Amino acid sequence: MKLAVIGAGAVGRSVVELAGEHGHEVVAVADSSSAVVSDGTDGSGGAVGVDADAVVARKAERGIVGDGDPAEALAADYDVLVEATPTTLGDAEPGFSHVRTALERDRHVVLANKGPVAERYGDLRALAADSDGDVRFEATVGGAIPAVSTVEDIEPSHVTAVRGVLNGTANFILTRMAAEGLDYDHVLSEAQDLGVAEADPSFDVDGTDAALKCVVLANVLSFGAADDPADAREFTLADASVEGIRDVPGSVLRLAAEDGRTVRLIGEATGETVRVAPRLVPENGTLAVSGTQNIVQIETTHAGRLNISGRGAGGPETASAILGDVGRLG
Amino acid sequence: MKLAVIGAGAVGRSVVELAGEHGHEVVAVADSSSAVVSDGTDGSGGAVGVDADAVVARKAERGIVGDGDPAEALAADYDVLVEATPTTLGDAEPGFSHVRTALERDRHVVLANKGPVAERYGDLRALAADSDGDVRFEATVGGAIPAVSTVEDIEPSHVTAVRGVLNGTANFILTRMAAEGLDYDHVLSEAQDLGVAEADPSFDVDGTDAALKCVVLANVLSFGAADDPADAREFTLADASVEGIRDVPGSVLRLAAEDGRTVRLIGEATGETVRVAPRLVPENGTLAVSGTQNIVQIETTHAGRLNISGRGAGGPETASAILGDVGRLG
Repeated sequence: MKLAVIGAGAVGRSVVELAGEHGHEVVAVADSSSAVVSDGTDGSGGAVGVDADAVVARKAERGIVGDGDPAEALAADYDVLVEATPTTLGDAEPGFSHVRTALERDRHVVLANKGPVAERYGDLRALAADSDGDVRFEATVGGAIPAVSTVEDIEPSHVTAVRGVLNGTANFILTRMAAEGLDYDHVLSEAQDLGVAEADPSFDVDGTDAALKCVVLANVLSFGAADDPADAREFTLADASVEGIRDVPGSVLRLAAEDGRTVRLIGEATGETVRVAPRLVPENGTLAVSGTQNIVQIETTHAGRLNISGRGAGGPETASAILGDVGRLG
Repeated sequence: MKLAVIGAGAVGRSVVELAGEHGHEVVAVADSSSAVVSDGTDGSGGAVGVDADAVVARKAERGIVGDGDPAEALAADYDVLVEATPTTLGDAEPGFSHVRTALERDRHVVLANKGPVAERYGDLRALAADSDGDVRFEATVGGAIPAVSTVEDIEPSHVTAVRGVLNGTANFILTRMAAEGLDYDHVLSEAQDLGVAEADPSFDVDGTDAALKCVVLANVLSFGAADDPADAREFTLADASVEGIRDVPGSVLRLAAEDGRTVRLIGEATGETVRVAPRLVPENGTLAVSGTQNIVQIETTHAGRLNISGRGAGGPETASAILGDVGRLG
């Protein structure tokens, strides 16, 4: 398939680099201020994509992907628009408009950007219903972990809850606090030095990132199980009960350890609720994944509980989920 | 979709019972000696399936599913043939012929029967290539665990190995031996009393069942990664190096525990090898699942390691995988 990649951060660049290995062509790439569009064919009618290495190098050296305007990428001849711009809340712009443009042109959309899926799920479904294009968003939850597609295969009406450790930054901090007996501020600094936490870590440590992922899952469960999607409850971040890890003292972890337990930031979604909070879990139990690992636990009606753990973030990992979605398109 | 279910054991019966919840109609059911075929429509052209409860009750009371001949089920008007007869080795009959009949009629096939996929993968692919019908077989590996579809989504060429605990009977025995300090024969008897092990347990405890699942995975990796499937190496059970658990003494488990380890029957498949053997693993590690649980560990080139654990067997669990496959058909 021909891909237009909107967003040239770690995820977008990884999609550009890896698309060829999956048999796809990247025909356009855009970041917030620039674009590059391949206008070539190979002489026998086949599409020729952009020069992936050149695009990535240009972004690294000059901060732009090309000399074109982002609108040119949105107008290019692609089969699938990959939306990998930063997650924004509320109106989820500009990502939502990118998605709308593609769907109004009857093209497919694959999202890594959580904004449209968490904050405007109803609008997203309405656009998809009126389009010949499909919308997929595995990469919005759990990086390399096939959370959304597994819920989809089991059928949302046969899934009673999805919970897990969905943010690697918060999990890394809690793991290190427990392992070293250090307090939050100390470990946060360490995480920032390692590049595991951002200069402003609030999105991760306040539980917002985990909550957005749970909102996405709640929307999948709610709409998937509804007899009539028009009646389904739509979730946004505002519906989530969210508590982060800033107030977890080192003493709680030490006390927990004496009891064979530890603390993890656990997010849970059902078709009715979304909750993120630090919770006590068995030290050697399934939910106590370590470091930046994520785990998704799916409770089913007929098949018991499924646990899927792996890398929840990263350029190649998230690109893997995006390209898996492209493979699943019609 | 309209399903013909061939095989009325625990798995076949669960498919008959659960198909309706997934929006499918069961139009025919067969066991080794009988069949029932729905000949009805609902007056508006829609298909009417068999009476699921009546079929299951009839099988329980009289040992047959109906008064028809199995050939009638194979000749019925269905979209998907579900092959859920017992796994047989070598020529994989009669299951292979059921699959061939359906594909020659350009119908889809979904297998729980490992025989055709492990022992005649090349023949199976050839039939599928000449048919308008597709072949899927998630249910042949890991019960409710989405092993095959996850490898498919990541792409076989991006998977370097798949390993795990793939047989719940053997795992239950090893778990109990370690937990109670009991020897193999004692725990085997307990497992048989519980219905976790069969009267003749060899298929499970000798590692054959786990090996067949690994052979299926090796075929998926080998053919999936080949530039030209005609050149791909085909695996059968004969290619597997297999060692079971009969000779694991209680003393090994006790020694292992002193070192924070335990023993699990681990199967591993790559595009080049298939091995099943008891292995020492960390006691609290990912591979040390307990009881009848299974775990599948997928090593990827771009997304690190994925671990998926859950119920590896059972009627509803395996039916869930079958119905997930039906949902994924064209």
